[in-house]
Amino acid sequence: MQTTLDAICKQIGPLDEGAMQAARARQDRLTKPRGSLGRLETLAIQLAGITGAPIPRIRRKAVVIMAADHGIAAEGVSAYPPEVTRQMVRNFLDGGAAINVLARQAGAQVLIVDIGAAGDSFPDAGLLARKIAPGTANMTRGPAMRRDQALAAVQAGIDIVCTDLPDDVDLVATGDMGIGNTSASAAILAVFTGAAPACVVGRGTGVDDARLAHKVAMIEEALAANQPAPDDPMDVLAKVGGFEIAGLAGVMLAAAARRLPVVIDGFISGAAALAAARLAPNVLPYLIASHRSDELGHQLMLDALGLHPLLDLGMRLGEGTGAVLAMHLVEAAVRLHTEMATFAEAGVSEAG
Amino acid sequence: MQTTLDAICKQIGPLDEGAMQAARARQDRLTKPRGSLGRLETLAIQLAGITGAPIPRIRRKAVVIMAADHGIAAEGVSAYPPEVTRQMVRNFLDGGAAINVLARQAGAQVLIVDIGAAGDSFPDAGLLARKIAPGTANMTRGPAMRRDQALAAVQAGIDIVCTDLPDDVDLVATGDMGIGNTSASAAILAVFTGAAPACVVGRGTGVDDARLAHKVAMIEEALAANQPAPDDPMDVLAKVGGFEIAGLAGVMLAAAARRLPVVIDGFISGAAALAAARLAPNVLPYLIASHRSDELGHQLMLDALGLHPLLDLGMRLGEGTGAVLAMHLVEAAVRLHTEMATFAEAGVSEAG
Repeated sequence: MQTTLDAICKQIGPLDEGAMQAARARQDRLTKPRGSLGRLETLAIQLAGITGAPIPRIRRKAVVIMAADHGIAAEGVSAYPPEVTRQMVRNFLDGGAAINVLARQAGAQVLIVDIGAAGDSFPDAGLLARKIAPGTANMTRGPAMRRDQALAAVQAGIDIVCTDLPDDVDLVATGDMGIGNTSASAAILAVFTGAAPACVVGRGTGVDDARLAHKVAMIEEALAANQPAPDDPMDVLAKVGGFEIAGLAGVMLAAAARRLPVVIDGFISGAAALAAARLAPNVLPYLIASHRSDELGHQLMLDALGLHPLLDLGMRLGEGTGAVLAMHLVEAAVRLHTEMATFAEAGVSEAG
Repeated sequence: MQTTLDAICKQIGPLDEGAMQAARARQDRLTKPRGSLGRLETLAIQLAGITGAPIPRIRRKAVVIMAADHGIAAEGVSAYPPEVTRQMVRNFLDGGAAINVLARQAGAQVLIVDIGAAGDSFPDAGLLARKIAPGTANMTRGPAMRRDQALAAVQAGIDIVCTDLPDDVDLVATGDMGIGNTSASAAILAVFTGAAPACVVGRGTGVDDARLAHKVAMIEEALAANQPAPDDPMDVLAKVGGFEIAGLAGVMLAAAARRLPVVIDGFISGAAALAAARLAPNVLPYLIASHRSDELGHQLMLDALGLHPLLDLGMRLGEGTGAVLAMHLVEAAVRLHTEMATFAEAGVSEAG
């Protein structure tokens, strides 16, 4: 049975204060100066609050990568042609992309979702076929999708967490593929924050100055043509969003409802998180920002989310690469919390 | 046969430009926008230059942790009593410390070295017994050690890399344990940079304001009493250093001579790196700064080394914890470089 968006949003509760207090007390008994593990301590405490377990565990990890195409790509806003979305999904299926390499290293399962790639469905059994439509419409001339399509995309994300994600996955990462999706993400960011497109539109896969100026103009045109309502997140997702962005918002909401921590990737996952947080503000404490991307608007996006990234490596690839890389740090936090000896166990003197 | 410090310093050559050029060219053929993996790309290229292999490999990893005591601890410069050095070495041997947990996660071998802990030798076969002396003398009243002891400590580090480190270790991390060693490290930093102690002395394991002021005064006293010569690194190590700091400098020099990348931890490893770089400036490109520690003087230290840290997580534990955590990132860089498909292999269109 499908769990609806409304039901999911209502299920997202606050973090478990009791578990966090117990985790904090445990951290202070471990053989290290208090606070000396920095973010690794607060991460462990956050995971206790998310899961409700004073000693949280990570049995299995997974990254959900959603792929979709964008009508605005026809306007030449990307350095790459639109067919690259499909070619990269093929690369994901063949195991040759950056995310495959990093997921193998981290021991994370890769769930590849075609939620809106252009062209036919992929014949591969290894891919989750959830295509809402073969790409969005060109948002410079009207809405990227219908409102019911945006809702269906969010629902597809919810269903993947409720149905396709193995039960023993304790840590979820989000990733994306879609030529043109930094344009949609920048548009979403502009609507939710009120920032001017020129301040939030970046180079994406690496456009030059002339194409960047054109990209800014195209997003201004899309916002003028659609007038998305900032207080209606489904309206924003439908008019200037993307299928993968809406789908990832659904993944985040359903994971939070299941009390699963979600490591979010960069600019596209961040746009999805902004939409998710407008649908259900309680989702935010379940999110872990993996990295600060090199994309221009990402810092403003992180500020709007109130999240502090774990990594700052000048990455701007997407696919979930930053998120899966940060999984090592989240796992380190949990392992330290679980496996370190206490002062009493080790017979080590405490601070005087 | 022992390789002497002089011979080691002469063996450290520049990075291999040809291998770096080949690695750079390979990075630009991989299925991602150019530069989109940020620091992970430059790391892969650096490792190519270090090893001389266009596609470097990491078969095995190891962290060398050197433990020693400091006479200045008698002045009450630490939040912890001096016996904690010995208790923590016991914790390392029993596998309960933070570094043990992180090394297990990263699959890194832990080499624990008693290079100068107070008290008798440890009876454990699992520890490398290289004690120069049972702790340094109190440097507020005279030199921490004799010059020949400083040289012996550096030589002990060289010998560990040349003799005890398995041949198939391709990535080395450095770590430390020693109550009082942030004082020695701050003194070294002050001498080499000319900075005032008040600007480089931090809270270490967590001293309060009153004890911090006392710690600054003690280091000022040590510098006034010893007058270390900034242009004579062995004089600096002997007068205001520590056995673990000198030993780690030896590890870095010998690793560089063997063309091994060294991931350095925080403030204490950084002080060792400063000394190593004064002994042989060519060592610097072989070093990878793992993290920016929360210790006050660490940013100045990184600036003096010209190194940019991979992580910034507010950690200040030592033991090599930051270095081993960063090994995941170094390994990610190498795996991406090695395993990703090229545009041609994957049939993905390049940027237009």
